[in-house]
Formats: sequence, structure tokens, C-alpha cells
Amino acid sequence: MGTWYRIALDAMGGDHGLTVVIPAAKKALENHVDIALILVGDEQQIRAALQAQNMAETERLQVKHASQVVTMEDSPALALKNKKDSSMRIAINLVKDNQADAVVSAGNTGALMATARFVLKMLPGIDRPAICTVMPSLQGHTHVLDLGANVDSSAEHLYQFALMGSELSKAIDELASPRVGLLNIGQEAIKGNEQVKAANALLENSPLNYIGYVEGDDIYLGEVDVIVCDGFVGNIALKTSEGLAKMISSKLKGSFTRNFLSKMAGLISLPVLNNFRQEIDPRRYNGASLLGLQGIAVKSHGGADSLAFANAISIARTEIIKQVPQRINKQIAALLEGQTV
Amino acid sequence: MGTWYRIALDAMGGDHGLTVVIPAAKKALENHVDIALILVGDEQQIRAALQAQNMAETERLQVKHASQVVTMEDSPALALKNKKDSSMRIAINLVKDNQADAVVSAGNTGALMATARFVLKMLPGIDRPAICTVMPSLQGHTHVLDLGANVDSSAEHLYQFALMGSELSKAIDELASPRVGLLNIGQEAIKGNEQVKAANALLENSPLNYIGYVEGDDIYLGEVDVIVCDGFVGNIALKTSEGLAKMISSKLKGSFTRNFLSKMAGLISLPVLNNFRQEIDPRRYNGASLLGLQGIAVKSHGGADSLAFANAISIARTEIIKQVPQRINKQIAALLEGQTV
Repeated sequence: MGTWYRIALDAMGGDHGLTVVIPAAKKALENHVDIALILVGDEQQIRAALQAQNMAETERLQVKHASQVVTMEDSPALALKNKKDSSMRIAINLVKDNQADAVVSAGNTGALMATARFVLKMLPGIDRPAICTVMPSLQGHTHVLDLGANVDSSAEHLYQFALMGSELSKAIDELASPRVGLLNIGQEAIKGNEQVKAANALLENSPLNYIGYVEGDDIYLGEVDVIVCDGFVGNIALKTSEGLAKMISSKLKGSFTRNFLSKMAGLISLPVLNNFRQEIDPRRYNGASLLGLQGIAVKSHGGADSLAFANAISIARTEIIKQVPQRINKQIAALLEGQTV
Repeated sequence: MGTWYRIALDAMGGDHGLTVVIPAAKKALENHVDIALILVGDEQQIRAALQAQNMAETERLQVKHASQVVTMEDSPALALKNKKDSSMRIAINLVKDNQADAVVSAGNTGALMATARFVLKMLPGIDRPAICTVMPSLQGHTHVLDLGANVDSSAEHLYQFALMGSELSKAIDELASPRVGLLNIGQEAIKGNEQVKAANALLENSPLNYIGYVEGDDIYLGEVDVIVCDGFVGNIALKTSEGLAKMISSKLKGSFTRNFLSKMAGLISLPVLNNFRQEIDPRRYNGASLLGLQGIAVKSHGGADSLAFANAISIARTEIIKQVPQRINKQIAALLEGQTV
């Protein structure tokens, strides 16, 4: 597997395991002729699933056995200690051992975070990993981090998130100088908590293109490329968005199926509505990057379907091509030496 | 003004001042025959605006002069100290002096919060006011608090917010036992920060119908009546929702105006789309309650139009009828005595 971008998939992870990962692998291999995938998990089950889909093991689609599965309920500590032969752990090990260039998992976030951190180690100068995802905006998209890897982040951690997010945006969006904002609230009285204020001071004196405080709505307005916040806040913003999108989509459907006339209108509008649905389809944004590690790890949504999981694989591929960890490492090293690259 | 529910309006507050408040007052007086309004602000300007709208001063529409205006940039401390004759302050004073039963303002949130707290005082047993608003859900609506009155709330504060929100829901929704949830993140590793965990313990031992942790998407799914969080998190959730709704609405419009065929489809679907738009119209949810005070104060969105501001007036009216502060007071007193009412 020399000439391909090699991606290890935790084939047993997530709410749906193989049912989603196998068809997603198929899609990904079709989409990208330059990748090879390693399906990690129970080899018997994987081979049966491949057969059921008329898929063959090839140089580009290999199977690697793992006898255990990390469940959604396992604590990170337990997963780390007692599940050393889990599909998640073995997939991460492949990255560590340079048999894969990236890992993708839809499994338990806490366990993935802890295991990836333990096995791959942090980049020098980065204290904690951060979860970063892309959210659609009026004019493209916005990278938001952290989304739940940390709660109660210090100012220094928020600053590191900003550096990593900026570097990711440079790599992915090919922007020379991504606009970085710090998530805050606009109430005049109580603008920000102590960590946010201290992070603001750090960012104002940084080489980043820091545009200052932004508010929740800025995630979607397209005037900023990277938004930094602590994991608690970021996770709430992400989940709130998921809930609202679900409600709006349901109410829109309800409006078009209320009576005969509205159903007719819906039928006529079907191509338009499908186009709209596609544009805001959360599956197109599935795949969150675990940044700050010495290796590439992408978290897929636990409930992702195969289209969504395939998107997470695409993100891993892009990060391999763009050498995201190496870039972050280089930038941090330069900053520690007091210069920018 | 004896037999009406009397509501004082900060006529100069918000982004649009009289331009919005006067037509909103007109709408509200038409909608509710049982209310009387007091327009507080520059009397010359108010009278000119009334004349321009062919509106007369009556027993149900009075004018009260105030020579100053709190701007959106004024700090709460400055507003409190140097703007004792502002429209905001005088309107709040009317509640304090029992010349009005509630106050509505679209002005500077921090100043409104600080002034209302200073003038009206807290209810006994409540440490801090909270801002609570209703957000639409798949099956009705959800009360969410706090939305920015506080950052870094202690467990005890979160507990008090839960009590107030529950009592508000009992009063407004006429539910016997509203379901109360505590906003948290679902990552297994790091479930909650310290305050949230401690508040969870308090709530589990409370007489409230506490259903445990909820996540951001639960705001919109309709399985919980009251969601409690600290003001930083709540404000981010609210603003994020505003941004997403704006983006979705813009993209939907874009889809229907892309080309001739989609425009035709949009024309045919117009009644359906209008119905949908109305259902998720944020103006129908405008008006946040300042809870925990010895009096009723409602905050309108700074950028609210007259329809939205009229909705905030309706909320004030409902809280007067339902005697929300008295109910919260009674509930807290009963809890302090170790019993529930």
C-alpha cells in the first residue's frame, strides 16, 4: 500500500457499525482513486459484510482483525485500559505504526479522544487536542473548535485552538490569512467570562488574523473563517444547530403536506426543495478533525449514514494531502521561536 | 388607569426607538382591550410621533416624560449613575411606584438588567435575575434560561433558574409539573463541568419534575418544557439559532429564485412558504422575561420591529395576569420552609 493515501476505518464504531462503514468504504473508494482503506474490526463479520455487498478484498481494501469493540457507554479510562484490542485502538495503532496515514471512527468520542491522545501523543507545544468541524455559512463555511474535547479551557488553551484552527483553514481553504474570531456574548454588562477575556488579550498580540469577538450567529454569516470557543460552548452550539435544522426541516415538510393544495405545491417544488435540502444537508459536513495530535484522526457522527461517513473519509484524505499535523507543528515551532511562517 | 393591565414602555429604547414602539403600541392596544400603555420618553418627540400616526392620548395611552436615553453603548454602571431620568429608568420606576404593572424595553440589556435589579430589587431567596425566553419546538415551545444575564453561574444559581423557569412554565403553559432539563454536553469523557454536575445533584433532590441532562438539540425537540443553563451558554445557543435560521431562510429563498422554473415553483408554493415562514417567525417569540425581580420586566430584541415589540407587550400582559413574580415568590418561600406548593 505504498502509493495510496492509507486510511484506517474503525469498522465497528458508531451506532450502526459495519452496516454504515462498508457501504461508506465502497463510496469512498469510488470517489477517490488515490485512497486505500483498512477495515479494522471482527474479520469474520467484516468478510461476511463485504460478501453481502459483493465487495472483494483488494490492495485498496484490506481487513485487519480486532477482537473487541468500544461501546458508546464505555468510559474513556475503561476503553484505554481494558480494550487494547478494540477496532478503535487497533485503527489508531495503525497510524502510530505508519501503516495508515489517518484514522476515521464513528465511535465513542471520549474514548476516541483519550485513545488517540495516548497512542499518537500531542504535538509539542499543544496541551490538549481539540475537535474541529466545518459548519456551512452564507458564504462558504466556518471552522469551529473546540466542540467538546475539553470543558473549562484556559485562555492559553483557547489560544492554541486558534492557532490550530487557523492552520487548518490555511491548509483546507487555501487562505493566506484566515480570519479568526473568539466566541463571546454581546451583552454589554458582562461581556465574556475571565478565560475569554484573557484569551482575547493573547490573540490580540498574536500573529494570527484575529478579528476579535464574534457571537453565535457569526457561525453562519460567513464573515469569519475560524471560530474558537471552549468545548462545552462549542458542543452546545453544534447540537442546538442540529436540533433547529431538524425542526425547521420537519415544519417545512409539514407545511407542504398539510392539505391537497399544499401537497400539489410540494410536488411542483420538489426539485427546488431537494436542491435546498442538499445545500444544508448536515451529512455533507460530517467529519470532525481531532487537532493537536501527532497524526490524523477524524471523528464521524455516531449516527452517520454511509454518505456522511464517506464524507468523513474525504476529510481524512484532504488532511493527509495537506499534511495538517505537520503544518500545525511547523507553525507552533515558529511561534515558540518568536516568528511566524 | 384602574381596571386595565398597565404596561410602561421604554419608548426610546432599542435600535429603532419610537419608529417601532409607537406602531407596536397601536397594535397591542388593538390586540388586547384590557391593557393600558404608558409611553415613556421625550414627550415632544412622542407626541409628534403619535400625531404622525393619527393616534390620540387617551386613558389607555398616556405619555410620561423622560429627558434622557440609555444608548446601546452605555455601560450598566454609567446608565445607573448618570441616566436617572432616562426613559428606561423612569419606565422601571413606574413599576416600582405601582403606577404600572410591568415594563417593556428594547434597550441595552445590561443596563436594563442592572437598573431593574437596582430599582425593583430581587425576590427573597433569589440571588440573581435570569433572562428567560420561549423557543419554538416540534411540539410547542421550550423555556430557556439564562440567556445572558449571568456568566459563570454557580450550581445554586442554576438551581434557582430551574425553580423560576418551572414556575413560569406552570403559569404560562398551565402545566401542573413542567419537565425541567439541565443543559449539558453528551461527550462521555467529560460530561459536564463542575457547576453543572453540582446543579444536577441539587435538582435531583428537588421537588421539581427534573428529567436530568439534556443536550442542545433538545431545545427544539419538544420533550422538555424548561431548559436551564448559564447565561454564556444560553446566549450562544440563542444567537447560534438566530444565525442558522437566517442562513436557512436565505438559502431557501435562493433555491426558489435560482431560475425561471424554480421561480414558478416558488410562486405556486407562496401560500405554503408563507405559512411555514410564519410558523418559525422569530418575531412571534420576541420578548424575554427578566425573572427573579419584584416586578415584571420584559426585554424586547434591540432590532425588533413593531410586530415583534407588540409580542413582547403581550408577554408582559400574560405575566401580569398570571402574577408570575408572586408565584415565584410563593414557591421559593415554600421551598425555604421545606415544602412544595
